[in-house]
Amino acid sequence: MKCYELQGPGGIDALALVDKPVPRPAAGEVLVRLTAASLNYRDLLTVRGGYGSRQKFPLVPSSDGAGVVEAVGEGVAFVPGDRVIGSFFESWTGGEPSEAKMRAALGGAVDGTLSEYRIFPAQALVRTPAHLTDIEAATLPCAGVTAWSAVIKLGGIRPGQTVLTQGTGGVSIFALQIARMAGARVIATSSSETKIARLISLGADVTLNYKTTPDWGKKAREITGQGVDLVVEVGGVGTLNESIRATKIGGTIAFIGVLAGAPASELRLPLMVMQQQRLQGVTVGSVDDLQALANALALHQVKPVVDRVFPFAEARDAFHYMASGAHLGKVAIAIG
Amino acid sequence: MKCYELQGPGGIDALALVDKPVPRPAAGEVLVRLTAASLNYRDLLTVRGGYGSRQKFPLVPSSDGAGVVEAVGEGVAFVPGDRVIGSFFESWTGGEPSEAKMRAALGGAVDGTLSEYRIFPAQALVRTPAHLTDIEAATLPCAGVTAWSAVIKLGGIRPGQTVLTQGTGGVSIFALQIARMAGARVIATSSSETKIARLISLGADVTLNYKTTPDWGKKAREITGQGVDLVVEVGGVGTLNESIRATKIGGTIAFIGVLAGAPASELRLPLMVMQQQRLQGVTVGSVDDLQALANALALHQVKPVVDRVFPFAEARDAFHYMASGAHLGKVAIAIG
Amino acid sequence: MKCYELQGPGGIDALALVDKPVPRPAAGEVLVRLTAASLNYRDLLTVRGGYGSRQKFPLVPSSDGAGVVEAVGEGVAFVPGDRVIGSFFESWTGGEPSEAKMRAALGGAVDGTLSEYRIFPAQALVRTPAHLTDIEAATLPCAGVTAWSAVIKLGGIRPGQTVLTQGTGGVSIFALQIARMAGARVIATSSSETKIARLISLGADVTLNYKTTPDWGKKAREITGQGVDLVVEVGGVGTLNESIRATKIGGTIAFIGVLAGAPASELRLPLMVMQQQRLQGVTVGSVDDLQALANALALHQVKPVVDRVFPFAEARDAFHYMASGAHLGKVAIAIG
Amino acid sequence: MKCYELQGPGGIDALALVDKPVPRPAAGEVLVRLTAASLNYRDLLTVRGGYGSRQKFPLVPSSDGAGVVEAVGEGVAFVPGDRVIGSFFESWTGGEPSEAKMRAALGGAVDGTLSEYRIFPAQALVRTPAHLTDIEAATLPCAGVTAWSAVIKLGGIRPGQTVLTQGTGGVSIFALQIARMAGARVIATSSSETKIARLISLGADVTLNYKTTPDWGKKAREITGQGVDLVVEVGGVGTLNESIRATKIGGTIAFIGVLAGAPASELRLPLMVMQQQRLQGVTVGSVDDLQALANALALHQVKPVVDRVFPFAEARDAFHYMASGAHLGKVAIAIG
Repeated sequence: MKCYELQGPGGIDALALVDKPVPRPAAGEVLVRLTAASLNYRDLLTVRGGYGSRQKFPLVPSSDGAGVVEAVGEGVAFVPGDRVIGSFFESWTGGEPSEAKMRAALGGAVDGTLSEYRIFPAQALVRTPAHLTDIEAATLPCAGVTAWSAVIKLGGIRPGQTVLTQGTGGVSIFALQIARMAGARVIATSSSETKIARLISLGADVTLNYKTTPDWGKKAREITGQGVDLVVEVGGVGTLNESIRATKIGGTIAFIGVLAGAPASELRLPLMVMQQQRLQGVTVGSVDDLQALANALALHQVKPVVDRVFPFAEARDAFHYMASGAHLGKVAIAIG
Repeated sequence: MKCYELQGPGGIDALALVDKPVPRPAAGEVLVRLTAASLNYRDLLTVRGGYGSRQKFPLVPSSDGAGVVEAVGEGVAFVPGDRVIGSFFESWTGGEPSEAKMRAALGGAVDGTLSEYRIFPAQALVRTPAHLTDIEAATLPCAGVTAWSAVIKLGGIRPGQTVLTQGTGGVSIFALQIARMAGARVIATSSSETKIARLISLGADVTLNYKTTPDWGKKAREITGQGVDLVVEVGGVGTLNESIRATKIGGTIAFIGVLAGAPASELRLPLMVMQQQRLQGVTVGSVDDLQALANALALHQVKPVVDRVFPFAEARDAFHYMASGAHLGKVAIAIG
Repeated sequence: MKCYELQGPGGIDALALVDKPVPRPAAGEVLVRLTAASLNYRDLLTVRGGYGSRQKFPLVPSSDGAGVVEAVGEGVAFVPGDRVIGSFFESWTGGEPSEAKMRAALGGAVDGTLSEYRIFPAQALVRTPAHLTDIEAATLPCAGVTAWSAVIKLGGIRPGQTVLTQGTGGVSIFALQIARMAGARVIATSSSETKIARLISLGADVTLNYKTTPDWGKKAREITGQGVDLVVEVGGVGTLNESIRATKIGGTIAFIGVLAGAPASELRLPLMVMQQQRLQGVTVGSVDDLQALANALALHQVKPVVDRVFPFAEARDAFHYMASGAHLGKVAIAIG
Repeated sequence: MKCYELQGPGGIDALALVDKPVPRPAAGEVLVRLTAASLNYRDLLTVRGGYGSRQKFPLVPSSDGAGVVEAVGEGVAFVPGDRVIGSFFESWTGGEPSEAKMRAALGGAVDGTLSEYRIFPAQALVRTPAHLTDIEAATLPCAGVTAWSAVIKLGGIRPGQTVLTQGTGGVSIFALQIARMAGARVIATSSSETKIARLISLGADVTLNYKTTPDWGKKAREITGQGVDLVVEVGGVGTLNESIRATKIGGTIAFIGVLAGAPASELRLPLMVMQQQRLQGVTVGSVDDLQALANALALHQVKPVVDRVFPFAEARDAFHYMASGAHLGKVAIAIG
């Protein structure tokens, strides 16, 4: 089988396309013929050699994948032909996170999905909703589950509440779609009128251009009267202050962005305290969360937004495109 | 009746002792003869004119008070002679906080407790546990309830978990006592061996001197193996980084301190995200929380730590003493 | 002002239309000119003298009301002309229920809403959403809030989950509408094809006729594969067994019905244990819950289903009609 | 290796002591040399052939076991010599229960622990706290975790609250010990003064003899004023009515007993509704719960109450003794 390998810290162009024997599933394992993968910002950081300390070489990159069951080991409920999605954390089936549950992260601590075949423990697989293509399904594990954790599991959003999303990256678009499914009002920010038009077509109730409205947090607070219930913060420290301004008393800021930013002297942390706000770190989620997301998308027949699909042979171009930041939604790779 | 008034932004020595008529309770109201008050850092900031925007003049300072029911209005369950404690927020009886519930804050938006008599809405009063003196009871509304919210209501601490407390201020001491009642292990930090000895006598399982162990967060993580479940952060941004290091994956940092501090570039917020940590602002709590705290103290016959009691005539000295930072536990004032 | 009074246990026809002076609001109180009331099963039981022990005579019946602010006491945020809804429990503003919070129940322990004017404590009022008429608004306090508590606050329903509702009473219809707003799938039962057609038009995804499908619980479990996430149980013990069958492992049965039924020997309580199911009693909710429901209805522009409106002069007929069980949705009364 | 097998529905005396080859662990698996097992009521039902539908033959009975790691497969963190406890549900590592997570129940759907050796998936094992013997450790998986789930995970007990326990069975004793560790007040019932003396020595704050006080629920409500926060209901329907009487508004009845009982006409379910009580089925718990329990016992150096230990050769006598109901606490079996 063919797969891409990061054989050392060499960046995107150092990705090598290699040949390996197809592995055989042991008891409780499933051999999946991967047909689709999608990229996340973390995959880009990984390939650039800048992510985490647990990184191993050689490493098959990319955390997200979907495909078809090829063969199964003993005591497995799946059968060949089943369409499946792999969970980002192989051992985090449910409940609270822990070091043990988060150890086996695809495309990081263990090999990822830029491969024609891969072995998954049966407990790490979820059935692909019928209305999704494999390409669409491959966008769920990281971006989709992160948005689900932020809006539903940790954000606990209820009908009639307000969620603020930032920009048009994969997590933000999923957060918008999930917040709408949960009956919430969505205020979405962006710097481009073209992208804002797209956000509206996806269901954004209110949009704010943060270029022309730099104090969008204050604005969001005015619009809602008392502030938004949840901000899905993907910008990191740089935008955190406006997010704090946007959030209501007792509200939550789901913290996903890992970018550095403005000086702390300006960080409105005292305001966070006085308003009993919660800054909640979000790191993807469990297999249970992936299943819950799949159920919701299936019921609502909602499809992930895929910006562009690259053929397996051009995987490196997919990373370069990801790096350009020109995308809206997910960047995917069709395998085989 | 006599009461202290802050008649303008003049600092501690501008506190005026004035005479006023004793008010009469309307339906649903209770006239309380206050016998004790206690001071909090926020009271000091208020008197110095540096706290909040809603501040009114003249203002009777101090948020915490306890005493005896003198008279009641129609439809009130209390009777003259009942010993009672006043809740910090008069309208926040329970549930999630909101601007409306947090509007009437004693010693801030409305008159406080440095007065011989005060009218309370019946719903803002809790019966004083029999084992507490009025002085001890007067330390519960701000510091005690804040610690309860941090450790129990928002921290959700369970038996066998670990809580890290910082220093020997009122909230920290209460947090230590509450964590112990909840069956948790307590790691307490301090800069003085004398105070550390006191923390041990109060039940601290492990103590760390942050002067001699500046990387106390790393140390706490080593001691616990995977990190502590909860840090009661009273130091603010300055100590936040060590708190993030101390906290386990999925753990909580109850954020109470409002002091400025280190530059953001050094803030370990990305680590917070990767470890799915929660930075939870805490702003005192509701009448239900005060009642729950009172029930716990009564069952365990635990008494608050009172550092020193000043007579009503020397209330200004109490503020100066508070400002000196020499205290361990609460600074109180005996009224009448 | 005119109001109806239950002067003793005499049933519907003993309801007396009497004349009283219009009361004046004290500090913190609001005088509301009631323009609409709605009836609940409990109101029928009350008038028949069969509900609760706290019942007083004379009693103004009916728990639900909406209207317009006529005058306000000191320190109230409302102004004359504001359209408002009264909460069922005047003192339960938020948080956990308690005897104290549930003491003042309209139309039970205290006078209700079958009156041209009524005094409310300001904290018990919520602003009427602009898209609702007063008649529609008057259906929210009991039936609407009970459904909200069952589906959202206590049921914690998330997008993609399944809720089963029973019949076409006020609570059940609200539960269907709320579950849909929350992104859930709804399985609705009824005994009449006409009503089933109506349930479908209201958004029911699946309908079951419990006359032709007496084992509807088993059927619901088959349809969902593993069982429903939540049953809104209004039938009481009689239908409880089928509800237990319908519910998934770890699922919830929101228990609202108070009717007696089948012998316990048949009650499937052991199955409840083995499946870790939760039977959750529901008793309306708090002012916070009423506000949350109002927010959700406003965002989604959802209107309550009003079956029939009776003029104030024919209030007794409204009770008789309620007793006939012929209604689908709420029975209301237009006042003045 | 030697193990007991239930080769068909023949009752205790049909238990056969057989010889089998020692299995070898595959990747992710651990071979444990079992040194201790403990019995639960469900094991008795199983041997009597009266429990569940998934039962297989031949079956190695008993759900609880502890021992020493003998050998490990690839990718396992344990090493030979590690002392370990096996979780009741092999696949329920954490989070919400589900059919998949609850499928592999020891001594039911899969072979149990009455065996000299057994293969466990690594994720189903927890390290034995140093202060516990293997016999003591073997009492945790079912009874201990069930009590933990009832009091902490599902009951959410906080310091100062009140828990009512029934009798002196394994779950009830654990519930008493756990409630005490959580800072709660415990009201314990029993029919024997000897056992009551023992309950007091274990920390019960109040004891009630249900023989001499048949209305113990009413009594418990009087003692607490508003009712207990949690009842750990092990008696089933028979005692459920008194439990409902004992429980406060908004309180919880953790439902564990699976015995039949009184007629429904007498069941106080309407009272449950009016008091917004929660009847919560409890079915043991997850590996995370077992770990949390082990942590709590270790911190508090609390030891399970073991009534009597039988040698492996006399395992049948242990079942007969269990059946006699003469025990207080757990009945255990020493293996090898």
